Amino acid sequence: MDIKFCPVCGSRVTFKIPKGDNRERYCCNKCNEIIYQNPKIVAGCIAHVEKKILLCKRAIEPRKNFWTIPAGFLENGESIESGAIRETLEEANLKVKELKLFQIYSIPRINQIYIIFLKEIKKDDSFSAGDETYDVGLFSFDEIPWNQLAFQTVSKSLKNFINDYPKNTNVYNDVLE
Amino acid sequence: MDIKFCPVCGSRVTFKIPKGDNRERYCCNKCNEIIYQNPKIVAGCIAHVEKKILLCKRAIEPRKNFWTIPAGFLENGESIESGAIRETLEEANLKVKELKLFQIYSIPRINQIYIIFLKEIKKDDSFSAGDETYDVGLFSFDEIPWNQLAFQTVSKSLKNFINDYPKNTNVYNDVLE
Repeated sequence: MDIKFCPVCGSRVTFKIPKGDNRERYCCNKCNEIIYQNPKIVAGCIAHVEKKILLCKRAIEPRKNFWTIPAGFLENGESIESGAIRETLEEANLKVKELKLFQIYSIPRINQIYIIFLKEIKKDDSFSAGDETYDVGLFSFDEIPWNQLAFQTVSKSLKNFINDYPKNTNVYNDVLE
Repeated sequence: MDIKFCPVCGSRVTFKIPKGDNRERYCCNKCNEIIYQNPKIVAGCIAHVEKKILLCKRAIEPRKNFWTIPAGFLENGESIESGAIRETLEEANLKVKELKLFQIYSIPRINQIYIIFLKEIKKDDSFSAGDETYDVGLFSFDEIPWNQLAFQTVSKSLKNFINDYPKNTNVYNDVLE
């Protein structure tokens, strides 16, 4: 977002180092409000059963028509796990709970932090495409459409998942370019 | 922050559900910009050596004069680990690297996610009080000022650290009220 006005009083802002700080922020010229900008969290879930992984075909930009795990921006008022649960319900109409923390990716270039959980679902759990999803399905490890995955975080986390399967006890913390 | 004006065009905003969304956001009445608000990450570090933990006495609000581990808001452009490294340098003038992921706390009530790392430092590593710190010191496990700790995340994470010491391989993911 290109910040030009103070959200509190509507006056013009200046990009400068506030007193007592050490980096530039948008500062209101009138009421001195400081508008901080911080990384956002994306919470997601690898839902799997019998060596198959649930993937969703994205119906929205970015990366429309590419495949992803259920994931999206964490909202105010949520725990990270509850965010991953909500996204799994919204995108795949799949109800999950009691997820296991699995992977964290920092992507400083785009100010995003991905936090990905695991959930072993049941063979007869129902799922279907949500509003932001064209299609949803279970893919066995050798069926995963690696060249049609939406994001680097998805391919990296699926590779780690498959490499560690079925133990998956290691919790990864990596940085992506 | 009490949002009343659009940061992009300076017009008044309305708190409403945008088209295609399912929760209320601040929406500009003129240019239709949506101002999203999301949880912020606090990155911190438990620096320890020979069963002693580094604690800082806070020189700023909130919880001025209470003790804490080095921790602070993650900035745009940082990985979580680099944020914890920066905070440790800023608050305790202690240089650390190659931290180990240890604990994640979601605090939905205040829209914060704490991510805490471990670092075993050397006995002769130098540290001192930074600008936002009155005092800094190494506390043995039985010297920790439990009643004067600044935040619940600090007391919880230190208890987990001490209970698991010296193995500390479990990565916690908890929700705090």
